[in-house]
Amino acid sequence: MQLYIGNKNYSSWSLRAWLMLEKNGIKFEEIKLPLATPAFYEALKAVTPSLKVPSIIDNDIHVWDSLAICEYINDVYLSGRAWPESMGQKTKARAVACEMHSGFGALRNEMPMNIRAKRSLTISDACKKDIARIEQIWAEQMKDYADEGGWLFGDWSIADAMFAPVVMRFQTYGIVVSSQARLYMDKVLSCSVLGKWIDEALQETDIVTIDEAGTELE
Amino acid sequence: MQLYIGNKNYSSWSLRAWLMLEKNGIKFEEIKLPLATPAFYEALKAVTPSLKVPSIIDNDIHVWDSLAICEYINDVYLSGRAWPESMGQKTKARAVACEMHSGFGALRNEMPMNIRAKRSLTISDACKKDIARIEQIWAEQMKDYADEGGWLFGDWSIADAMFAPVVMRFQTYGIVVSSQARLYMDKVLSCSVLGKWIDEALQETDIVTIDEAGTELE
Repeated sequence: MQLYIGNKNYSSWSLRAWLMLEKNGIKFEEIKLPLATPAFYEALKAVTPSLKVPSIIDNDIHVWDSLAICEYINDVYLSGRAWPESMGQKTKARAVACEMHSGFGALRNEMPMNIRAKRSLTISDACKKDIARIEQIWAEQMKDYADEGGWLFGDWSIADAMFAPVVMRFQTYGIVVSSQARLYMDKVLSCSVLGKWIDEALQETDIVTIDEAGTELE
Repeated sequence: MQLYIGNKNYSSWSLRAWLMLEKNGIKFEEIKLPLATPAFYEALKAVTPSLKVPSIIDNDIHVWDSLAICEYINDVYLSGRAWPESMGQKTKARAVACEMHSGFGALRNEMPMNIRAKRSLTISDACKKDIARIEQIWAEQMKDYADEGGWLFGDWSIADAMFAPVVMRFQTYGIVVSSQARLYMDKVLSCSVLGKWIDEALQETDIVTIDEAGTELE
């Protein structure tokens, strides 16, 4: 299986698919393309009609879009265990994962993932609303699961793949959250698999101008 | 089961969940709330933490987000048959459904669903790119399925729920597509279940200013 991704410092959608594979111990070849360059589009043309990362080629099956990749891997490699087992919890996990997948446009625009940066930022009311809703999701789940696995639904699930890049964004722009929500951020940040991605992001030197927001701290 | 939706003229996400239930003959109580009014948020507060439509309450299970609702209904009521049967086609259907769910931001902003209007509109290059990609998806699928069921993957699937509101947008703003892609638009527009939604949209009189784009024709 080949996974096509963008720069690890910036590509939040790539991180989601990469975590899904890496956290579940699925072997794959990683092909990293430099975002926003002619080489990026040239390489993707032969691979994916959406011209976006992430994208995977698994023999004759081709999947693009982070959530579709997660669902495919879950169906084919994990017998469904990347969603919670009970229908009630599975449904809630899918609802918050989908909420992230289709929504939070202000947050996605104003607070691009930029792992190696520490920035201060002036944000819009729409972005504050996005942050408040995300904080609410994390805090609510931690009430039930902080001591029972620590992921949003106890065991790691696709919902955690969807929210990991948001934790990185909160970290970069110094977003302060409630102590309950902070438990979740700490859980994500202490994950050694994510740590591997972060280490590689820190070694990258390419600058993607459109993803550089805010004022550098110190 | 209760389904909460917005105005039928404007609420594209609501249409997706409604089609999923109605096309599959699943009984539900429809609760329509006037978008962008205090009454909308007041009613939703008790129902859904995302404060958005669509949202369903199915006894003790609560689902929000259009795609999560489609997946839930498919799992619980349809034994999975709202995705194509073969893994290759199921995966492709999910990829295009997810591409719609998370993407096409320019199209969603610039060409709001407004069923009863006929408008001309100046659109951005980003929106033109979105239109071209959507047209490519429709035309490619019609090559295989125009004569074999006529939906994107032959039989009606969740991918069709996701793209139905886009057909309505193309109709409103007079977007001209290739003859292959047009076959798909005609298939969608001739669907009697969608026709029921359209009839009710035409009877609505509320105006949601933010969704009124373009210049009225004739």
